[in-house]
This record gives sequence, C-alpha cells and structure tokens, in this order.
Amino acid sequence: MQLLFFKQALINAPEHFVQETLQGIVAAYPDRLRLLDQNDRVLLSTETGRDGKVGIVTGGGSGHLPVFLGYVGHGMADGCTVGNVFASPSYQAMADTIRACNFGAGVLCLYGNYGGDKMNFDQACEDAEFDGISVASVRVCDDIASAPRGQESKRRGVAGLVYAYKLTGAAAARRMSLSEVERVAQKVISNLRTIGVALSPCIVPEVGKPTFTIGEDEMEIGMGIHGEPGIVVSRLLTADETAQMALDRLLEDLPLTAGDEVSVMVNSLGATPPEELYILYRAVAKILRNRGISIFMPHIGAYATSMEMAGVSITLCKLDAELKMLLRDPADTPFYTNHNK
Amino acid sequence: MQLLFFKQALINAPEHFVQETLQGIVAAYPDRLRLLDQNDRVLLSTETGRDGKVGIVTGGGSGHLPVFLGYVGHGMADGCTVGNVFASPSYQAMADTIRACNFGAGVLCLYGNYGGDKMNFDQACEDAEFDGISVASVRVCDDIASAPRGQESKRRGVAGLVYAYKLTGAAAARRMSLSEVERVAQKVISNLRTIGVALSPCIVPEVGKPTFTIGEDEMEIGMGIHGEPGIVVSRLLTADETAQMALDRLLEDLPLTAGDEVSVMVNSLGATPPEELYILYRAVAKILRNRGISIFMPHIGAYATSMEMAGVSITLCKLDAELKMLLRDPADTPFYTNHNK
Repeated sequence: MQLLFFKQALINAPEHFVQETLQGIVAAYPDRLRLLDQNDRVLLSTETGRDGKVGIVTGGGSGHLPVFLGYVGHGMADGCTVGNVFASPSYQAMADTIRACNFGAGVLCLYGNYGGDKMNFDQACEDAEFDGISVASVRVCDDIASAPRGQESKRRGVAGLVYAYKLTGAAAARRMSLSEVERVAQKVISNLRTIGVALSPCIVPEVGKPTFTIGEDEMEIGMGIHGEPGIVVSRLLTADETAQMALDRLLEDLPLTAGDEVSVMVNSLGATPPEELYILYRAVAKILRNRGISIFMPHIGAYATSMEMAGVSITLCKLDAELKMLLRDPADTPFYTNHNK
Repeated sequence: MQLLFFKQALINAPEHFVQETLQGIVAAYPDRLRLLDQNDRVLLSTETGRDGKVGIVTGGGSGHLPVFLGYVGHGMADGCTVGNVFASPSYQAMADTIRACNFGAGVLCLYGNYGGDKMNFDQACEDAEFDGISVASVRVCDDIASAPRGQESKRRGVAGLVYAYKLTGAAAARRMSLSEVERVAQKVISNLRTIGVALSPCIVPEVGKPTFTIGEDEMEIGMGIHGEPGIVVSRLLTADETAQMALDRLLEDLPLTAGDEVSVMVNSLGATPPEELYILYRAVAKILRNRGISIFMPHIGAYATSMEMAGVSITLCKLDAELKMLLRDPADTPFYTNHNK
C-alpha cells in the first residue's frame, strides 16, 4: 500500500508562489474579491451593504488553502492577509486589513493560535485602535494534540478555524455587536476539538525539502499542519482504527452524552483523496451513532491543508441551538457555499 | 522541488474500498442520496418532483471522486453506478440505475468514452428499452491527447464530464425532451476540450503499486486518468509554461477567436494543491485575455481525480447563449453547488 515516488510541483519561481496564488484567486473571482491597492498581500471581499456589520479579519501563513484566503466572502471573513508559506503575515498587512474591514461596528480578528501571528495581530490591533477602530481578537486553539487539557490556550489552531469563520461570520452577518460576535467566537472555540494524523510530509517551495520524515507503514498522530511533531508515531492504522483512535481522544477532551449534537469535519491535509475521507466518515458516523450523538451538517473535504501532505484531521464542533442556527445560515465564498434558506 | 517519499492510504481492506466509500457518502448526505435497495453499487438522488423530467444516468470506475458519484443531485445526474477502481460497473447495475431514473420522459446515459463502459451501457440500454424505457447515450470524449483530430470519437472522457453533467442536467431540469437533452449533450461535447499533465502516479488499492512511473524533473503530457500513456514526456515545465503548452494544444483543436466566451476548468488530479491550480489559472486567464477570449464561471479545484496522482488538467468549454444559460442554472450536489438565481 506504499511505495516511494516523486513529488513535483507546478509552480513558477518559489519566491512568487504566494503572490501568484493571490493573483490567480482574484483573477478567478473578480466580482467577489480584490486585493488592497496599497498592499497586494491583503485579500478583501467586495460584498456591498456591510455598513454597521462587524468586520471579520483573518490571516496566517500560506500553504493551507482553502485556509485562509478561501474563506473570504459573504457570511464568513471580510478580509485576509497571508504571509509566506507557513510564515506569519506582517503586522502592517494585518493593520491594513483591519482598517479595510471596519464598517463602523468594529473588527474581530480571528486566527490560529501561533506565536508569530499573535505577536503581529496584537501590534496591528494596537495600530487600529489608535485610529479609533474597536477591535477584538480571538485565537482558535482546537488541536488537542498540541497541549494537554487545562492548557487549552496553548493549543494550535487547525481545521477548526473553518467552523470559527462560519459561525462567527454568520453572527456578524446577523448584525450582532462586536461583543456578541466575540462571545460567539469564544463559545465556538470552547466546543471545538481537532486531532490530525499525517501519513506523508509536504514540501515548502522555498525550502525544497520535506517538512518531516515518516517511516513506511507508520503514521504520526497529532502532527501539526506545519509539520509540528505529534504525540505518538503509530503503525499505519486502518481507517476504522483511525476513526476510533481519533474519537476516543476527542471525546475524552470534549465529553459528549447521548442526545448531544455535533458537526463533524473530516478534512484532507492535501493528498488524501475524498474516497478515504468518506471511508473514515463512515466509521466516525457509526461510532457517534452508537453513542447516541447526532451529526448535523458534516463537512467532508479539503478544508485546511498543508500543501500536498497526506493525512487527515477530524474535528468535532458541539452545537447548541444558537450555533446550529449560525451553521445553517447562508455563506458564499470561493471555497465554501451554504445556501440554506 | 522534488524528493522521494512514501504514499500510504487510510483505508480498511482494499476489497471494501468502493463499497465503504459509497456507504460513507450516503451516511454523510442521507436526506439527499440513497443506495438502491437491490444493488448497493447504485447511488440515487432522493430529489422529489422529477415526474416528466429526463433522467440523467452516469457511471464508470471508482477512484475519480468527485467523478462520478459526487455529481448526483439537483441539476446534474439523477443516478450513478460505479465499478471497482478504474473498472467499469456491470451492465446489470447500469440497467438498474436507468430503471430507477426513469421519470416518464426517458433517460440519457452520459459517460466517459471507454470500451468497457460503452459495452456495458449498450447492453444496459438494450435491457431498459426492452422494458419500454426510452434511452439515449452520449459519450464524453474531451481528452485531445488520446486521439488526433478527425478521430474525436476515439478520445477518452476526462474532466470535461463535469461540464457535460452540468449543462445536460440543467437542460433536463428545464424539462427539455430526451431528444433536446441529447442535442445539448452533443453540443457540449463538440465544444469541449481537455489536456492533462501528470507529475506523479497513483496507487490503486487492490493493486498496490503505482499506475506508471515518471522520472525526476519530468512530467508526462496527455497522461490519461487511469495512467494511460501520454503523448510526450517533457522536462518539468513551470506553471506558466504548462499553461502555454496546454492552451496552444487546446486552441489548435478548438479554434477560438476574439470575442468568444469559454468556461475554463483547472482541475487537480488529486495531490496537486489548490495554490498550484490558482497559479496556473492566473497564466491561463492572461493568455486567453490577450487573445480577446473572455472567461465565464471558471472552475478551479479537484473535479475529476485519479486518487492521489499529482498533476492537473485544463479544460475549455466554449459557450453560446444556450450553454451559458445552462451553466448558470442552479445545481446542488455534494461536490458541486451553484446557486445563481
């Protein structure tokens, strides 16, 4: 089931990788997205009628599409800035994004919990507040493998970012106030848990070598989306075993009882094909059903990737009535559409 | 830009790969999709109100998700049957699908131009006609690398299948007659051209070894989605060079002039990440713009894959007023949504 082969990339110069990706996205959706005139690392929604809406701003390193750029649009993020592959954007770009996404009701910065991003967003928020913009910040920290219980605030943000954008973006679209949108973001995060497994590394174009190595017939449980070390190297589990292992760990961290409702994300880290995601989802759904937990609007696909890394992550997002309503609300971005009425 | 590493898969037993994929898809979308009671290789839409609509039926080998199963739903296919990885479904399963998708106005079988699929669909259509069902068949043959001009009917069907489903499915949803829907399908195909490049092979679970080999710093132009040999092995081109090479070949086969309008698909064969697709799209859009050809509703993503093969295909679908209207029409399947009004 495994063999050596080559990975090659269809790019131009590695140093143009990020900018050409941005140019391609704007070329594809010119009616919906634009780059900021004074900073071509800032992607903005062109949606009209946002006066009085809280702006949702995000950003982070490149190499994770659809995270981050793919979620700019109606009902999710209003603007996004990206850095080089796996590197934080500059604080100036973040401040530019915040200013461009202030529609008079303040801005929520919603991003993954990484040191560089936090440092830069903190500085950017200071700059924006100096300009009189109300700003709040919430960091997504859903990766249970990155720090133990009790140290949730040290955890990294991974695929759970997508639920955070969706639910917080819907709250903003409903014209909730900045403090209400921030409350929703915090509630999402307290109900959000992810664990990933990696089966092969990716190659950062500007580096040209794999982010990590992994042995034949092995997988790494808890690997981060930048190749951060996981918690255990395991033999290669089957799909059913992987689902069981992941849910055992997730449910230990986020106890659920019969009657609870969750949304589940089974996410490809890049090279893992959709067939494998559905085989995994089949096992995840069976385990949850046997515990009396029902699934609402599962998300199965490539939502948060690491270039061409093979592997998956599984996310649980526990829902209450408010979060369920917000998850159902419409959204329309190049990588996420939901047209429930 | 390239190194050896392992490919490993998250599956259970290889012989359950296809059935478990189907089970996972139905588990994920139980309100929208079901398996046929008497044949669990047949996936059907549960949409109501289809009386008097032409049924659109498709099928083919597994391993290409979202092709074929992913396009069953409103405005695209009504039913689909899949075989093992890269193998035709049985004619019995095809006949079962046709019978289940007859809503009183006949059924169009729309599938890729492969020998096994043609033989089995021909037999299935005979069976269905014996039961009094009006049936028409159209084979998609968009891969210009698989046979020269003048021998279009020998060409294989690849990512262009998605345009064929979309436009033909919209015609059926508009309650066009079987002969009208068939006419639309033929028109789509005469305006559809694809070429692919492969950068790495995939591994069929039941076989366990790569479908082909490719050298370091090389790419194969015209490779088929089952690893059929291409037309030339090239040094690894840049994204810009790849776009130019692909468009030179496509436009030689489908001459376009200034003022023409096309939809463009830049499709990942599996492991190629979205960043690379947008870098390519950027180059494709520039070349077309320079020729005065405008792009309508580009499709950029993983629409037709070969497991975890790295590579892309580029498809042009020339549009007239009717095809443009049909492309805009709503569609809603697990892998394709379009909610234009």
